[in-house]
Amino acid sequence: MYQAEYLKHFIEEVFLAIGCSAEEAALASTVLISADLRGVDSHGIARLAGYVRLYDNGRLNPTPDVKVVYETPSTAVVDGDRGLGLVVAPKAMEIAMEKAEKVGSGWVSVRNSNHFGIAGYHAMLALQKDMIGWTMTNAAPLVTPTFSLDKLLGTNPLAVAVPAFEEPAFVADFASTAVAYGKFEILQRKGLPAPLGWAQDSEGNPTTDSNAVKSGGGLLPLGSDREHGSHKGYGLGAIVDIFSGVLSGANFGPWVPPFATAGFMSANEGVGLGTGHFLGAMRVDGFRPADEFKHDMDKWIRAFRGARAVEGKSVIIPGDPEREMEAIRSVEGISLLPPVVESLSELAKRFNIAFENRID
Amino acid sequence: MYQAEYLKHFIEEVFLAIGCSAEEAALASTVLISADLRGVDSHGIARLAGYVRLYDNGRLNPTPDVKVVYETPSTAVVDGDRGLGLVVAPKAMEIAMEKAEKVGSGWVSVRNSNHFGIAGYHAMLALQKDMIGWTMTNAAPLVTPTFSLDKLLGTNPLAVAVPAFEEPAFVADFASTAVAYGKFEILQRKGLPAPLGWAQDSEGNPTTDSNAVKSGGGLLPLGSDREHGSHKGYGLGAIVDIFSGVLSGANFGPWVPPFATAGFMSANEGVGLGTGHFLGAMRVDGFRPADEFKHDMDKWIRAFRGARAVEGKSVIIPGDPEREMEAIRSVEGISLLPPVVESLSELAKRFNIAFENRID
Repeated sequence: MYQAEYLKHFIEEVFLAIGCSAEEAALASTVLISADLRGVDSHGIARLAGYVRLYDNGRLNPTPDVKVVYETPSTAVVDGDRGLGLVVAPKAMEIAMEKAEKVGSGWVSVRNSNHFGIAGYHAMLALQKDMIGWTMTNAAPLVTPTFSLDKLLGTNPLAVAVPAFEEPAFVADFASTAVAYGKFEILQRKGLPAPLGWAQDSEGNPTTDSNAVKSGGGLLPLGSDREHGSHKGYGLGAIVDIFSGVLSGANFGPWVPPFATAGFMSANEGVGLGTGHFLGAMRVDGFRPADEFKHDMDKWIRAFRGARAVEGKSVIIPGDPEREMEAIRSVEGISLLPPVVESLSELAKRFNIAFENRID
Repeated sequence: MYQAEYLKHFIEEVFLAIGCSAEEAALASTVLISADLRGVDSHGIARLAGYVRLYDNGRLNPTPDVKVVYETPSTAVVDGDRGLGLVVAPKAMEIAMEKAEKVGSGWVSVRNSNHFGIAGYHAMLALQKDMIGWTMTNAAPLVTPTFSLDKLLGTNPLAVAVPAFEEPAFVADFASTAVAYGKFEILQRKGLPAPLGWAQDSEGNPTTDSNAVKSGGGLLPLGSDREHGSHKGYGLGAIVDIFSGVLSGANFGPWVPPFATAGFMSANEGVGLGTGHFLGAMRVDGFRPADEFKHDMDKWIRAFRGARAVEGKSVIIPGDPEREMEAIRSVEGISLLPPVVESLSELAKRFNIAFENRID
């Protein structure tokens, strides 16, 4: 078990070692460790070695000049200059919030970025200013739209954070697929099959093969099949891709580069620059007095949380499980899987940073 | 078979008969018939008698004073004054587009409205100005969120319309449920069961009973069950509800009034005013030169349409089926089911309007 502060400090040292500024290494490590704290282990420190691989492959600029390249009072395109998405996304969110401060809302589409960690982190930045936050990002193609045999979309998540008064904020943060790809990796390690409705095989048939996506198959959109609305999950993933990729001039659809792989799909090989994100901020008091709105959000949250539920379950408010996990892990610490500890030990050795190899 | 113009004229006469102005009767009939033209029969002329029932029940103001009650340069709340949603929503969209014209984007949350027809119509208004259009609306509770036994959300649709250059626009328009409620009504008429994953029974169990929603059960969110991501469909429906209802001061969650029923849930019984919508417009050239963006949209659309597909199928671009249906029905006419013809005949008799009772 590791304390979050210990791991955050380690991440910071690694980002400093590849040339990030002190300020950006601190920001990137805060974003990355927040995933581990919130229980989204697949998007936290487990990916640190991947970000370094991105650097090794020449796809990551550790000292990016993140700037607005096009704008109106409420909209902008930000060029991430091949920086860490972990840094580019919060900077773009700051720009969205400055615009919202002035004209009620701000919407920033980002090009030339990389993987930005968990979507929810960036959306939640808006909460401290009584704003609603939006985050989207596109990602490398793993998903076969309804009837497609080709993988054309990433898991393309959407996050929306909404402030309340006494209740904790509503924070929805979800991929536009039936499940996250990480669920397959867990099953692969255990040699277990996947439920039907998660993936299709190379011929478009339903499959329980947890290796299907690696063998020419694809992840299924939310809805799983046409009869259960997979065209809606496909539509949602498409919207996320268009707002993140097409609106910014980043890559989109089948051209979005993979997380950290070498060689494949340089900026010149694609249809735009790097990975794309979309961030938005709306002042609650651009619509109603903020306290009125937040009291009604309390009422909304309580009506849902208080609903009758199936035996042994309760109706969950989006964001509750992650917040509860953060409360626990902030105190009890974060446990890491052996391969993750190993990857961190290798980084420690390479960059000559202290790291205590500890598995409980 | 009826020509669209004939039916549109009939709708217009009915709205005039209940006291709408000439301008608003024309607008409302255009919106309503567009649903029939686009093949969304459940939201078209079949509902005309329902709108009249809404009027009979004192819930509809035929001469509303639709106005902005709160605003910033890019945001507003519009009060629909209990008007037809068919009229209130396009007026709110005009306000969103005026704001987008000035500051890049415009976002309008609407309270005190009623059912607004098909979401896609309002989003598509933005296309003519090279803008991206957004529409959401909440609706009466039919949906049981993940693990809930209570119906807390409506089918809460989302529509996003995006212009392209040579290709027809991308128009995603979908409910946040596994299926529309209309699919159950079709099965009920035929006495057929429903596929598992569409509804749950009164104890929260999966069911094939096509009458489940009437017998204490509920429609399932997109994703159907927890294992296939129903919490994401629930999250999406919740976002639509919060943006439409809480942000505007309309009713939300379990308090949203039914389409046209008498007595139930007057404004005083709820937590806000009427039904809520959310409309947005974003200038494409608030992000990139419009032609660049639209050429990239062509590239996006062609990549998806041209993908390999399962045998006998193709990858469908959101909006294509509705556009193709409109092309056919604009020429060949619209066929109506006997109960719909009967409801129109009754309206014709009541208001002394000519209507040719014709079933082929």
